[in-house]
Amino acid sequence: MSNNSINKASVVNRYLQDRLEPKDYADAFAPSNIALCKYWGKRDGELNLPVNSSLSVSLAHLGSHTKISRSEDGSDKVRLNNKDLPSDSDFSRKVIDFVDLFRRGQKIPLIVDTRNNIPTAAGLASSASGFAALMLALDDFFSLNLDKSVLSAFARMGSGSASRSIYTGFVRWDMGSRADGMDSVASQLDNRWPDLCIGLIKVSSARKPVDSRSGMQRTIETSKLYPSWPEQAGSDLITLEQAIDEQNFAQMGACAEKNAMSMHATMMSAWPPLVYWLPESLAVMQQVWQLREAGVAVYFTMDAGPNLKLLFETASLSVLQTEFPIMEVIQPFSD
Amino acid sequence: MSNNSINKASVVNRYLQDRLEPKDYADAFAPSNIALCKYWGKRDGELNLPVNSSLSVSLAHLGSHTKISRSEDGSDKVRLNNKDLPSDSDFSRKVIDFVDLFRRGQKIPLIVDTRNNIPTAAGLASSASGFAALMLALDDFFSLNLDKSVLSAFARMGSGSASRSIYTGFVRWDMGSRADGMDSVASQLDNRWPDLCIGLIKVSSARKPVDSRSGMQRTIETSKLYPSWPEQAGSDLITLEQAIDEQNFAQMGACAEKNAMSMHATMMSAWPPLVYWLPESLAVMQQVWQLREAGVAVYFTMDAGPNLKLLFETASLSVLQTEFPIMEVIQPFSD
Repeated sequence: MSNNSINKASVVNRYLQDRLEPKDYADAFAPSNIALCKYWGKRDGELNLPVNSSLSVSLAHLGSHTKISRSEDGSDKVRLNNKDLPSDSDFSRKVIDFVDLFRRGQKIPLIVDTRNNIPTAAGLASSASGFAALMLALDDFFSLNLDKSVLSAFARMGSGSASRSIYTGFVRWDMGSRADGMDSVASQLDNRWPDLCIGLIKVSSARKPVDSRSGMQRTIETSKLYPSWPEQAGSDLITLEQAIDEQNFAQMGACAEKNAMSMHATMMSAWPPLVYWLPESLAVMQQVWQLREAGVAVYFTMDAGPNLKLLFETASLSVLQTEFPIMEVIQPFSD
Repeated sequence: MSNNSINKASVVNRYLQDRLEPKDYADAFAPSNIALCKYWGKRDGELNLPVNSSLSVSLAHLGSHTKISRSEDGSDKVRLNNKDLPSDSDFSRKVIDFVDLFRRGQKIPLIVDTRNNIPTAAGLASSASGFAALMLALDDFFSLNLDKSVLSAFARMGSGSASRSIYTGFVRWDMGSRADGMDSVASQLDNRWPDLCIGLIKVSSARKPVDSRSGMQRTIETSKLYPSWPEQAGSDLITLEQAIDEQNFAQMGACAEKNAMSMHATMMSAWPPLVYWLPESLAVMQQVWQLREAGVAVYFTMDAGPNLKLLFETASLSVLQTEFPIMEVIQPFSD
């Protein structure tokens, strides 16, 4: 379904004025998000257009803070967590490539300074909040005044799930159908869930052996079970929206856990098998299942990595803090 | 697809003479088997008719030895591994129910004595070899003189994979299409593979929390990925037969491992999730993948339990015995 005549630059071009009017400084924050219905599989790798719609909850104050200012010595500088990065590092190149979509050859050397306040113990990816914060900061710095849905579409071109990090709370990313992806954008649900807690459990901070993009690709190309995934995700999305509307925690938790397990199932049936779990991940999963059998309303979700994100309500907070002393707790709607 | 008018007894009836002529004694041996393409899902739960054809390799001298003799005190007796079992135990009832299919009300009290020589360290199920040996012993005891394919069909009604344990070596179980299942039978492939080794690695001997029959049922009823399984199994069967014909070990090992991972993937996407793996299982899997990256031609398969069965050739035997000191090695074609 990829359309080779459409690339990121041609999509962005249509929304820009002829010449940028840069300010001296801008900054922006965007939150991390945890998907309850996962983004898993691209129908277009250039624009990061997904094969299924997805739904997430944002992590409130945990995310990325990005500052943009003029660089006085004529060359771009990229800083991450208070460290200057070499210009040929992966991170620098991704950031500068993204910025170039907007500069379009104009000589406006910049300092892009990103700080992630995600606790290193959390084991969370930061590309979603990072590209969302960068997009928001660019919008301000160049006075682009883009609509939020356009910001979501552009952030998506940096990292798929960044489309969701433009918003807080519950966020749905519609897969869309247009070749240029301008309808593949996120939007915020009205619902709030003050009692909802997310427990971050890190079992490893090792770099994952296969990045998400390659993992998606391998799964699509080699898993015979993957073709069933889009339908699973589609039905999970409906179930989750209904559960959120009715604040039915058991329905939400069960659906989110089943969705995550099904995503991991598609990976495991790829070749070579893609197993992001570590033995320690499985031990935590078993602990969660035992707690649930004992009557504790706790579920988990996992992304393309070994760490777990528990889902529960404040009523279960103290028992879970005792069970998982290393857990970092976020309350998306009250933090 | 289940046909309620057909049950085990009505199928067996057609193959029996009016009156049985029992001998005083009979015994038989049947080997365990390890499926390279798994039996996973029933289209008929009464007759154990599968949704896909499967392929296994038998474990030579490892299996079940069953002796049948007359019981002098008028009541049936069931012995397992030299212990008398209570008549209301699960095992006793299954054995007697199966024997009753053939006795059809005739008063012929029996002693059924089964011994499994599968090392307890192996972590292997014994229902396949058990029902195959029982069927072979009944055929002899009652002088039924049934064809091997009929024996395979009847053993299948005791336990699905028992259909394959009627034979040694490589065995294919065709799913068949008849409602009475008489074409859902196993047959032996001509091929031998003298260098082939199976390494049994037991990580736990705990009783599995969910038996295979219930696991299959839950998976079919709740997994959205399961509908892709029969096609996966069908294509794996073709790949495996070709690999066996050409003695292409990498092709056979990869296909068997992918088939097992895909079966486990369908379970994990069930609800509640069915994860037979233990943290220790995952650790052994990772060790296998690391060895493969280091150039050792080793693959694994797993059934509905936490234990692993490694597949390799004699050339890799010594390095693998060093890596896995607890491994029990079987050479199906030379033991």
